[in-house]
Amino acid sequence: MNMNDIIYKKREGEKLAKEEIEYFINGYVKGEIPDYQVSALLMAIYFRQMDKEETFELTNAMRYSGDTIDLSGIAGIKVDKHSTGGVGDKTTLIVAPIASACGVPIAKMSGRGLGFTGGTVDKLESIPGFRTSLEPEEFLSQVNDVGISVIGQTAHITPADKKLYALRDVTSTVDNFSLIASSIMSKKLAAGSDAIVLDVKCGNGAFMENLSDAIVLGNIMTEIGEAAGRNTVAVITDMSQPLGKAIGNSVEVIEAIETLKGNGPSDITELAIYLSGVMIYLGGKADSLEEGRIKAKEVLKSGEALKKLRAMIIAQGGEGSVIDNYNLFPKHSIEENLLAKDSGYVSEITARNIGLASQHTGAGRATKEDNIDLSAGIYLHKKVGDKVTKGDVLATFYGNDRIKVLNAVKEADKAFILAKEEVVRPVLIKKVIGMNNEQKE
Amino acid sequence: MNMNDIIYKKREGEKLAKEEIEYFINGYVKGEIPDYQVSALLMAIYFRQMDKEETFELTNAMRYSGDTIDLSGIAGIKVDKHSTGGVGDKTTLIVAPIASACGVPIAKMSGRGLGFTGGTVDKLESIPGFRTSLEPEEFLSQVNDVGISVIGQTAHITPADKKLYALRDVTSTVDNFSLIASSIMSKKLAAGSDAIVLDVKCGNGAFMENLSDAIVLGNIMTEIGEAAGRNTVAVITDMSQPLGKAIGNSVEVIEAIETLKGNGPSDITELAIYLSGVMIYLGGKADSLEEGRIKAKEVLKSGEALKKLRAMIIAQGGEGSVIDNYNLFPKHSIEENLLAKDSGYVSEITARNIGLASQHTGAGRATKEDNIDLSAGIYLHKKVGDKVTKGDVLATFYGNDRIKVLNAVKEADKAFILAKEEVVRPVLIKKVIGMNNEQKE
Repeated sequence: MNMNDIIYKKREGEKLAKEEIEYFINGYVKGEIPDYQVSALLMAIYFRQMDKEETFELTNAMRYSGDTIDLSGIAGIKVDKHSTGGVGDKTTLIVAPIASACGVPIAKMSGRGLGFTGGTVDKLESIPGFRTSLEPEEFLSQVNDVGISVIGQTAHITPADKKLYALRDVTSTVDNFSLIASSIMSKKLAAGSDAIVLDVKCGNGAFMENLSDAIVLGNIMTEIGEAAGRNTVAVITDMSQPLGKAIGNSVEVIEAIETLKGNGPSDITELAIYLSGVMIYLGGKADSLEEGRIKAKEVLKSGEALKKLRAMIIAQGGEGSVIDNYNLFPKHSIEENLLAKDSGYVSEITARNIGLASQHTGAGRATKEDNIDLSAGIYLHKKVGDKVTKGDVLATFYGNDRIKVLNAVKEADKAFILAKEEVVRPVLIKKVIGMNNEQKE
Repeated sequence: MNMNDIIYKKREGEKLAKEEIEYFINGYVKGEIPDYQVSALLMAIYFRQMDKEETFELTNAMRYSGDTIDLSGIAGIKVDKHSTGGVGDKTTLIVAPIASACGVPIAKMSGRGLGFTGGTVDKLESIPGFRTSLEPEEFLSQVNDVGISVIGQTAHITPADKKLYALRDVTSTVDNFSLIASSIMSKKLAAGSDAIVLDVKCGNGAFMENLSDAIVLGNIMTEIGEAAGRNTVAVITDMSQPLGKAIGNSVEVIEAIETLKGNGPSDITELAIYLSGVMIYLGGKADSLEEGRIKAKEVLKSGEALKKLRAMIIAQGGEGSVIDNYNLFPKHSIEENLLAKDSGYVSEITARNIGLASQHTGAGRATKEDNIDLSAGIYLHKKVGDKVTKGDVLATFYGNDRIKVLNAVKEADKAFILAKEEVVRPVLIKKVIGMNNEQKE
């Protein structure tokens, strides 16, 4: 086998065999196949696509390119959850405690963020003392004892994906369904859970800007999951405006806590109940998606979900009392407001601009080496559909560098669009795919 | 400007600006843009193509990526000639002396070969003492004194093309018209001649397998030449069988000498007269292509062309008497014949298989580091259209390694196809393009 022939074959629109895909992925990880041949193949894949089988084989080759996690030491059906990423998405911090409170064991590995805000791991690190790096035995026994653990990806998981992703990022070969789906699913399959819930974001703040693309991606990923023997459900959700009101790191943890206390914004609350409902169903703790949602609401209301978050924080060395006292979180020294220049109804809050603004405050990384300001971020006082009077505070910006914060205000100013007429709020849950359960709710 | 954006733009089918093409070529040569971005761009170009202007700008950026040759010290109109490459193509060794004998100054830089046989420079080095590396002043004064010099490419010419070509070769991005045309024309323009004759080979032994592709390539290259202010003519010629009867290095030099003596095979003689006729016309030494051919025939018949070759050999330190005594060439120790297994008419001699056989004898390089056996090669006793009786010698194979030579015989055996019925010989000159002179002769 020869990489040049493989590139040629795909360039000519032919289907790559399992062996060819494995040859390419294994050779690339070993450093035997150079970046320049891989990037040419990626561009050929962009133009010629991969079919269902090729995408599955690519996912599998990447899945086994490094360590895989064995969660068999944890009793019960382990359910993982993945979001394709958006602005203000603190869902994991809410759904994991809810599902755990309903008896679904949560053994979750999360990433750090590159972009608008930190990732779940960065957000958790805004809790004083919280350890995101646990030894495998510690991780497993915590899940068995406490029912929940969220840690960083410390193991050598899917190195092929890491190399490929970095290469795609600089060769304009990111936006191909097979490449996106295999990247996500290889990590999820390597992470060892029994079932997977995928939150596929859709809208201007997400990778998939329109619904039809999000559905295609959701279909491909659920097919891969099922082919690998994992019950997989994809939920297509709105990302035309930021999710919830807080964007940043500590501010998002606080909003997650508030949501678990029953005081969250309506959209993040609705999404958390929906997604944890699916997790509870997939985890065998409810007989239907609807029953899953009912159970989720119960543990939210009873405070059991919040208890689970506190238990996890304490188990991982964190200061559990942050739940009661937000002053324990990292502090910002600068605050600036964005005021409404007119009266009307918020018709759009472009998630992309808010995301960039969040990065400007210091809450996100532009490069891997950047430090995150865990106290920085944005709070949106108005969301799409809200009535606004000239001079109202639309959003508040936090940070420790006035120039950065003022830049963020400037960027966010582009995001808010007002209309004279009343505006309908966007539908949050757009579609559910998977488990022979395709439905619009 | 940013390479990732340039890749994206081309991937989306947009036209690249002059500045973007220059940014990419200059950055690549300087080592600031990595191979992996360039190969992704090349694949995007493969799928999206480049238009006339982009191809011209690419050619120009490559042309000026290194040194350019100044031939203004040579009086007269300097005419260069380039062949897209085929099997048994010793044309330069014949047309250069003919055109020079008609008063066209020949200041030609040639390459070494990678593939079936050596390049013109390798072939010339089979002449004892012949120096293919001259200092620029020596080169120019020889052309002014003797009227002709053929040397190797010693100057730092079109480094962008060298890097790009090496990359295309291992990323399945060779066969794109704009990339092929810009590679050839950047070198020709950098080499400093006033006019250019392109011999575009067409057939199974050539890069362009069919006539329509060869015409497209010829059109693009003549357009580039004209846009750069150089009179450029492309002649599409047959490469469905090897050119002439000798394939190798010294054997090709001998055949070239024989042709200059008036004893060459009919096809190579016809092609040499045609191409040198175009050179004589472009060099201002004839008023029409036809008159050019008449003059070419005259200097062939009078022996003036052969004299020019002898003068060049002597001027460059070579043994002029090789022209009279072929025993002075490097010697082979092994000879093997391929015999006809049947009687009939030769209907096909697949140039590709003969080329591979030539490489097997040791006459060609598989990699840059390989040494060439200058004495090795093939002599075809029969060509397409010839009558054959069972047991006739179809071809003889020369070399210094019996296993290699026998491998060559085996490979060449696949090349000869016999028919029961009489076979029409292929038309050699298929089309002429350029100088508002598009014609089929």
